[in-house]
Amino acid sequence: MTEKRTAVFIVMDGLGDRPVPELDGKTPLEAAKTPVMDRLAREGQTGLMDVIGPGITPGSDAAHLALFGYDPFTTYPGRGPLEAAGAGLETRPGDVAFRTNFASVDANMVVTDRRAGRTFSPDEQEALQKAIDGMEIGDVKVKFIATVEHRGAMILSGPGLYADISDVDPHEVGKKVLTCEPLKPEAKKTADVVNKMMKEVHERIRDLPLNKERKKAGRPLANAILIRGPGRHGETPTLGERYGIKSAVIAGGALYIGTAKFVGMKHVPVEGQTGTIDTSFHNIAMKTIECIKGDYDYVFVHIKATDNASHDHNTAQKVLAIERTDEMVGKIIEATSTEVVLAVTGDHSSPVSLGEHSCDPVPVLLWADFLRADESKHFSESEAARGALHTLRGRDILPILLGYAGHVEKFGA
Amino acid sequence: MTEKRTAVFIVMDGLGDRPVPELDGKTPLEAAKTPVMDRLAREGQTGLMDVIGPGITPGSDAAHLALFGYDPFTTYPGRGPLEAAGAGLETRPGDVAFRTNFASVDANMVVTDRRAGRTFSPDEQEALQKAIDGMEIGDVKVKFIATVEHRGAMILSGPGLYADISDVDPHEVGKKVLTCEPLKPEAKKTADVVNKMMKEVHERIRDLPLNKERKKAGRPLANAILIRGPGRHGETPTLGERYGIKSAVIAGGALYIGTAKFVGMKHVPVEGQTGTIDTSFHNIAMKTIECIKGDYDYVFVHIKATDNASHDHNTAQKVLAIERTDEMVGKIIEATSTEVVLAVTGDHSSPVSLGEHSCDPVPVLLWADFLRADESKHFSESEAARGALHTLRGRDILPILLGYAGHVEKFGA
Repeated sequence: MTEKRTAVFIVMDGLGDRPVPELDGKTPLEAAKTPVMDRLAREGQTGLMDVIGPGITPGSDAAHLALFGYDPFTTYPGRGPLEAAGAGLETRPGDVAFRTNFASVDANMVVTDRRAGRTFSPDEQEALQKAIDGMEIGDVKVKFIATVEHRGAMILSGPGLYADISDVDPHEVGKKVLTCEPLKPEAKKTADVVNKMMKEVHERIRDLPLNKERKKAGRPLANAILIRGPGRHGETPTLGERYGIKSAVIAGGALYIGTAKFVGMKHVPVEGQTGTIDTSFHNIAMKTIECIKGDYDYVFVHIKATDNASHDHNTAQKVLAIERTDEMVGKIIEATSTEVVLAVTGDHSSPVSLGEHSCDPVPVLLWADFLRADESKHFSESEAARGALHTLRGRDILPILLGYAGHVEKFGA
Repeated sequence: MTEKRTAVFIVMDGLGDRPVPELDGKTPLEAAKTPVMDRLAREGQTGLMDVIGPGITPGSDAAHLALFGYDPFTTYPGRGPLEAAGAGLETRPGDVAFRTNFASVDANMVVTDRRAGRTFSPDEQEALQKAIDGMEIGDVKVKFIATVEHRGAMILSGPGLYADISDVDPHEVGKKVLTCEPLKPEAKKTADVVNKMMKEVHERIRDLPLNKERKKAGRPLANAILIRGPGRHGETPTLGERYGIKSAVIAGGALYIGTAKFVGMKHVPVEGQTGTIDTSFHNIAMKTIECIKGDYDYVFVHIKATDNASHDHNTAQKVLAIERTDEMVGKIIEATSTEVVLAVTGDHSSPVSLGEHSCDPVPVLLWADFLRADESKHFSESEAARGALHTLRGRDILPILLGYAGHVEKFGA
């Protein structure tokens, strides 16, 4: 009978690349010394993956939704709910969520600073959050969290809310906050709620003691908020509901944690995990092993350093991030080889030459000790083009991992 | 002009496998001596196939539906209609079908034996079938067939019937037959019909002479039926309706015959064809040639012995079943090479190490004497990973076969 294993899914953000002249035309993955992943490629299977679809450059949030097995075209809720979840404010089906800024406005609601000076003390954040969180607009409840600097997340909860509304942010200093309009008839109530909320937030926070102090110090007032990226949490079943599995996310960035929580994963914090090359690869390996030995069926591990290096056009650092990840994978496999089915891939390509996301397919590596080996000799873009997995869609990788790990029911009899 | 050929589709049940230590890490297909299929692979094309979808372990019935070109996610009617068709009781669109057991109940409809002792003489089966078949419940007609031992199949035909109903079988001796409840509002009529049918069948069969004799002999009475696996025959067009072709099924097992009949194939019996290694491969080859030389456009040949060997963890017998199939394919091709387009594949993987179905893709071989050859040197899982067909879905293979055989109309002008 099929034994159940833990599906381990390791994503190096922005892994895929193009030939780099300073690497003699190799990609960073091809140039990096990756003895562990090369061995796993020889014993397992590789392929290429169009994370969203052919020719489509994936955004990080939609990419992860696809990698978690969801159709990004029907399930992607917009940035709001994913950032909110990452900030610790979880949406429920029917909720509409936004990313927010504290801003400065004059008496006529003309924006004078779209970020209210950008700098906020923890006390200021707490006072502002307390003033806004828990507001009620008719039958709609407002949840609010202040996050980093001027940023925050807001959720509207109540019946009949939709995300199809126009922007309130004029995106220019010297212009008045815009009236929110419905973009579809059914979003009229939501637009009305947003307009009332904008007014009430202004009234609630403009006279807080912190603004008196800011005024005294000549700092921009935090007397309004701007909202953006509205998204509605649709009827999205969690991974637990779909597969009956318990799943964990090990990640440093709020967006990845948020997207993972949105589909029902539990965030497992790791001491020293950051979004940079200085993240503790060793601690991530140890925590991943702990999750595998524990009762998790699916463990998602996100490494951000590869993408940061790409954005900085820093080839050497991208190579280094890949090599450190290879060592991390080695520690995990050494401790758990007969207990896992493993995939290593990227959420999109980020060529160091471009410094941004691109539509190039990403290489993917699949390994389990019982798998039929293909002829891949290394884990690289060029070898993956000839691997047994051929070209996958992003949304296929989770069912494949869970299928081999024994967590997908037989279809038919 | 494209000449029309016969599409020949040979399925070795459970063909796909994983590396087997006693075969030096080869799969049974890789270890088997298959000179015919190796030659066809050199002259033709190979690839891998996800029969239902990536990571999904196929059940045999849903797998065959996909291999016959149907979307299993929208077309799979459940086991009832497919088993009924296999038993010779064909459903029509709108019918709801069940698998049935004869059972023993006491005066309060408490189940005392879920199989009524399991043993039934042909006379007993005939008497019970006659008592039940043709019953009418309002405007719903009951069709019934007794099959093997206590088993049978039942079809309800009439307007407004649905399969979304609860179980009547308590699945435990000592418990009362359950009242059938609708699981969706539109299935209320069906649940009512089932409840009346359960009562009327009990009344019709409890006093039959066979039960008086059973009582005298101390054998369990066959005084009720239990039904399970309800499935509705949707608006599924036959292969004839979709492609204007005449198609034949050559198979030993009722489920495969049933699934083939469900899509409109005609069952062509073969003397000596069974579901075991002792099936007459020679007679199957001769009958297949007869169908090709006759007026069939599509001939589906099912070999069950490979899967039985997998379920028994019997590596040597799986290798033998593959080798005998190879010889059979040789006879067919020798007699018909310029008249056919041929595919050989499996309906799912069944690794001998597991003894059950798995999600591993299956190898597929496509041959016609005019096809562009790819670089495959053998028919095997590992060669297929590099073949020109790359990774197909199960539902793609029938259009490919029929397309090359000249039975698919040009799309557009």
